[in-house]
Amino acid sequence: MTKNNAVYVGKKNVMSYVLAVVTIFNKGEGEVQIMSRGRSISKAVDIAEITRNRFLPEVKVSDIKIGTEEMTTKEGTKTKVSTIEITLKK
Amino acid sequence: MTKNNAVYVGKKNVMSYVLAVVTIFNKGEGEVQIMSRGRSISKAVDIAEITRNRFLPEVKVSDIKIGTEEMTTKEGTKTKVSTIEITLKK
Repeated sequence: MTKNNAVYVGKKNVMSYVLAVVTIFNKGEGEVQIMSRGRSISKAVDIAEITRNRFLPEVKVSDIKIGTEEMTTKEGTKTKVSTIEITLKK
Repeated sequence: MTKNNAVYVGKKNVMSYVLAVVTIFNKGEGEVQIMSRGRSISKAVDIAEITRNRFLPEVKVSDIKIGTEEMTTKEGTKTKVSTIEITLKK
């Protein structure tokens, strides 16, 4: 499930993930996927934009997919959460 | 700047905007744009997903654009904010 060229957005600050994306490109990967869900979706867009505008201007957004995942809460009930997958390409 | 078939996402709850999107489609428009920025970006994705999964299964995401806008804060300083534009098509 986990890929070498994917960055999973969680609770760290935006710049930690920007650094992760830049590092993957600098290792020679031609593509990086930024994966996020729920409230962190806004953060995924920030990460893509900051990477392109401030660090790697040659990188383009090649694809954006949105979707819905079913999750089970701590209480055992099922809930739906939106997801985003932003693909950056060099 | 404002379009007839655009929904601008602000502080209202998700279902208000879903209703706005459904209403525009029901008036006969073939396309609706969901425009959002900053923290409301996650809400824009929820609106698109709920519209498709719960109300209008024939509607598809035809395009998603992300970008950056410069804004001036109340204090007069400039700041950057990420934006998203999700196009739904019947």
